[in-house]
Amino acid sequence: MDKDQLRSPFSKMLAEFERVLLSIGFSRERAGLCARVFARNSLDGVYSHGLNRFLPFVKRAEEGGIDIHAQPVCRASFGMLEQWDACRGPGPVMATHSMDRAIQLSYEHGAGIVGLRNTNHWMRAGTYGLLAAEAGCIGICFTNTIPIIPPWGSAERRLGNNPVVFAVPHRDGPILLDMSLAQFSNGKMHFYGREGRDLPVYGGYDMEGKLTLSPAEIKKSRRPLPIGLWKGTGLAFMLDLVAVCLSGGRSTADLSKEMEDDRVSQVFIAMDPKKFWGEGEMDAKIDEMILHLLSAPPLPDSDASCKGETGVRYPGQGMMRLREENLRLGIPVDLEYWDQVCKL
Amino acid sequence: MDKDQLRSPFSKMLAEFERVLLSIGFSRERAGLCARVFARNSLDGVYSHGLNRFLPFVKRAEEGGIDIHAQPVCRASFGMLEQWDACRGPGPVMATHSMDRAIQLSYEHGAGIVGLRNTNHWMRAGTYGLLAAEAGCIGICFTNTIPIIPPWGSAERRLGNNPVVFAVPHRDGPILLDMSLAQFSNGKMHFYGREGRDLPVYGGYDMEGKLTLSPAEIKKSRRPLPIGLWKGTGLAFMLDLVAVCLSGGRSTADLSKEMEDDRVSQVFIAMDPKKFWGEGEMDAKIDEMILHLLSAPPLPDSDASCKGETGVRYPGQGMMRLREENLRLGIPVDLEYWDQVCKL
Repeated sequence: MDKDQLRSPFSKMLAEFERVLLSIGFSRERAGLCARVFARNSLDGVYSHGLNRFLPFVKRAEEGGIDIHAQPVCRASFGMLEQWDACRGPGPVMATHSMDRAIQLSYEHGAGIVGLRNTNHWMRAGTYGLLAAEAGCIGICFTNTIPIIPPWGSAERRLGNNPVVFAVPHRDGPILLDMSLAQFSNGKMHFYGREGRDLPVYGGYDMEGKLTLSPAEIKKSRRPLPIGLWKGTGLAFMLDLVAVCLSGGRSTADLSKEMEDDRVSQVFIAMDPKKFWGEGEMDAKIDEMILHLLSAPPLPDSDASCKGETGVRYPGQGMMRLREENLRLGIPVDLEYWDQVCKL
Repeated sequence: MDKDQLRSPFSKMLAEFERVLLSIGFSRERAGLCARVFARNSLDGVYSHGLNRFLPFVKRAEEGGIDIHAQPVCRASFGMLEQWDACRGPGPVMATHSMDRAIQLSYEHGAGIVGLRNTNHWMRAGTYGLLAAEAGCIGICFTNTIPIIPPWGSAERRLGNNPVVFAVPHRDGPILLDMSLAQFSNGKMHFYGREGRDLPVYGGYDMEGKLTLSPAEIKKSRRPLPIGLWKGTGLAFMLDLVAVCLSGGRSTADLSKEMEDDRVSQVFIAMDPKKFWGEGEMDAKIDEMILHLLSAPPLPDSDASCKGETGVRYPGQGMMRLREENLRLGIPVDLEYWDQVCKL
């Protein structure tokens, strides 16, 4: 059987994750929440932050790097701006709690903003944008990370890849931008490397600090370029700065000491646009905007998805279709990871 | 006398702008506000949106493209989220009013968000981030524009360059990121073109839709690349989408019909971080973060500023020094523009 053909039903994956988390001491509620986050990430095709990331999460919880029972504590509250301390609790639990708070504030005040400190890796950033969009809100969130990107002007790593999310609710499923600030994700570099191809544009530095198209060289140097070079450098720094100023937490500079995505700082913003629009009006407006974008004639050789698809795409395009397909056929699983989870 | 050596005192530039605006019917208050925005943009070295942009602004006001007496109208208000209609009033007046509202809301509620529709070009985006930072707030703002960037996957223009600003207050002057989403600004392409140099990385498409390093080819095709290629494509689309959803205004798709930055949509966010920090604590934390960034050893040939300066820079670095220099020595002026203003 082809490895790529192996699939697991969503319900089975959910149950396995939940079983494992209960076995290492998670409460029933938290095991359910975390299992859902991991399984839904795989369901949406974000395997790197679903099944493929589950075992390291379990390991860190067992080692105590994550305090699985920690409760979030509100450190300060000013109307619709709140500051919370995750006390090293599980990233998906704390990020879900924070976006839920922002959504609740947005129902009361039109918008809500939460700064969160001392939290752990939230896995797929888009999870929390989807949470907002599924609650009818525009969601914006971002996190800082350990320094893994050299700022423009140097080949030494000083910037986080600071994933940032914009999510907008829509009748046919959320419009979702979930991007880190490295030009090429590890997955995409792996794809080009496996095919023996150069990257279409510079992706990072080689060991001598020269710009290169070679995914192998960048893997060796671990020095990827930020999107937009000097512009992404500025953006990565500002996201880190805003996250630190609002959360009172640790910066990428602080995280550089241990080089572990542990006790990071995050921001969650929810805005309730339904207040401004009549029934169906916003959906119709968004449809118009998508139509205009997709009307651009495709160029050949412009495959950004690494899936042989050329032409223009909008953020999150195809996610709902893939989710439906994975629900129907089962979620493609990497047998190595899946076997390990089932045997735990 | 070398053209580059011509300088005008800040007070003289301010007075000239004010005189011209009064002469075409601006109220005393609005003439003062707009003159200050234009003169301060030049003072900070953003000549392209200061003196060099003043005459087109006057022309549009005279032609009626800008309604110089229009009053902003609050269309909806929900706690700390407000929606305003600029009624085609002057961009700098309306954007200033909107960020002022967001700041006021942030003093009351911790944060404030304003969606603004039917407004005109706000000139330098950073102006409104500075406004927030000078009031002690973190400011985030963005605007949509006419479509001037092709989305990744096409060579036809469908995206605005949608300038976005992050500003954070700091003892020594605001940390300010003010960037449009084109990889190279017109100014930077002009710089490389004048020197007869290729761009350091792909900057856009030639007339055949092929990626090129040539500033001349990009000038001809008017098809610049977005930062981060597929990532900047997503970001430009989301900024447009959020601006439209919060303001109820026109999208880049709508603006494509007349190809005039007229009746655009903007978002202004202010957050008051002082509530979270003790005296001087935030400044000290920011100092640490800057120090960590600037400790990255410089690469040769990494001049992003086109000023012969290599190495890493933080957003807004050098602005306060240039402002002080221009205050002391006078603002460098392009004689052609300056003469025309003085003769109006």
